[in-house]
Amino acid sequence: MTSRQGRRPGNPDTRAEIVEAARTAFAAGGYRGASIRGVAREAGVDPSLVLHYFGSKEDLFAASMEMPFSVGDVIGPALAGDRDGIGERLARGFFSIWELPGPRGALLGMLRGALGGHDEAVRPFREFIAESIRPTIASVIGGPDADRRALAMASHLVGVAVVRYVVRIEPLASAPVDEIVELVGPRLQSYVDG
Amino acid sequence: MTSRQGRRPGNPDTRAEIVEAARTAFAAGGYRGASIRGVAREAGVDPSLVLHYFGSKEDLFAASMEMPFSVGDVIGPALAGDRDGIGERLARGFFSIWELPGPRGALLGMLRGALGGHDEAVRPFREFIAESIRPTIASVIGGPDADRRALAMASHLVGVAVVRYVVRIEPLASAPVDEIVELVGPRLQSYVDG
Repeated sequence: MTSRQGRRPGNPDTRAEIVEAARTAFAAGGYRGASIRGVAREAGVDPSLVLHYFGSKEDLFAASMEMPFSVGDVIGPALAGDRDGIGERLARGFFSIWELPGPRGALLGMLRGALGGHDEAVRPFREFIAESIRPTIASVIGGPDADRRALAMASHLVGVAVVRYVVRIEPLASAPVDEIVELVGPRLQSYVDG
Repeated sequence: MTSRQGRRPGNPDTRAEIVEAARTAFAAGGYRGASIRGVAREAGVDPSLVLHYFGSKEDLFAASMEMPFSVGDVIGPALAGDRDGIGERLARGFFSIWELPGPRGALLGMLRGALGGHDEAVRPFREFIAESIRPTIASVIGGPDADRRALAMASHLVGVAVVRYVVRIEPLASAPVDEIVELVGPRLQSYVDG
């Protein structure tokens, strides 16, 4: 316990200290090992303050990865509408985020860090997909092998992101988002349909 | 020019020297920039000796990336058979290679090196896909946007490889190849069908 213990909602550095504590926690314990309570303890604040700032563990992870958006903002609306449009909306949401310079830089950093680093670096990314992205999609698409199909959808998006933004191979590298959505959306939808 | 110049088919180190020269050439000039002739000159051998050992620039690249197989061995048979089975055969060929410990280590090294490194490290990988994999698939599937669909197929395979072998997310990480093929094959085929 340090002198920083206790609720300090008025301190402008508090949010930054929580993010810093979250980075440490996610790096040490992975997505699963980290907890709101543990991050709060490390930052010397009340858990309710962490929730006040970040809303959820997922959003806290996004902040700790310097992702200026939440996965819920992308996946939520895509999954919420009519079932026939999930593939297209998911593709559009995903690639629209990548088109924004800030998020693109953050996502590139996350992807390169996770894929190029040693095994430990990949762990938060693995658990984030396995415990947040995949089950969220799977619970909506349902049916046999929902987990498998949900992960295949995520894999396809990751693959196109790697080819378009990391390796930058034409004609996908510079195609407009509309054309990427038109190309990939129906194949994602085919996983939705099972 | 060095004293190593000239045809030396009997020297057991010659093959290794060619591979070494190829690595240097691919790193310096990328897949496109390197040539059989340039590699031969660098290794101090006749170009015909490079072809004798490696058959093609593609196979030389595979050797320089320490890939104990050639892409032609995988893509060739997959593309050669009936059109309706291309998706399944391509998936099976691709993942069967990844299942072999030697190639898996080499592919992991290539993928991690290309994705985690700086921009220059990604270049041979980019040109290898853009100038060998993509056009080979595109020329067989044909039709409008063949390049785009071929690259989308490669992207999907790369994405599943990343999730299954690099990040290792279940249930794709430990699913038998047959189940992966059953899952991904039809979606690849849908790109073939256009």
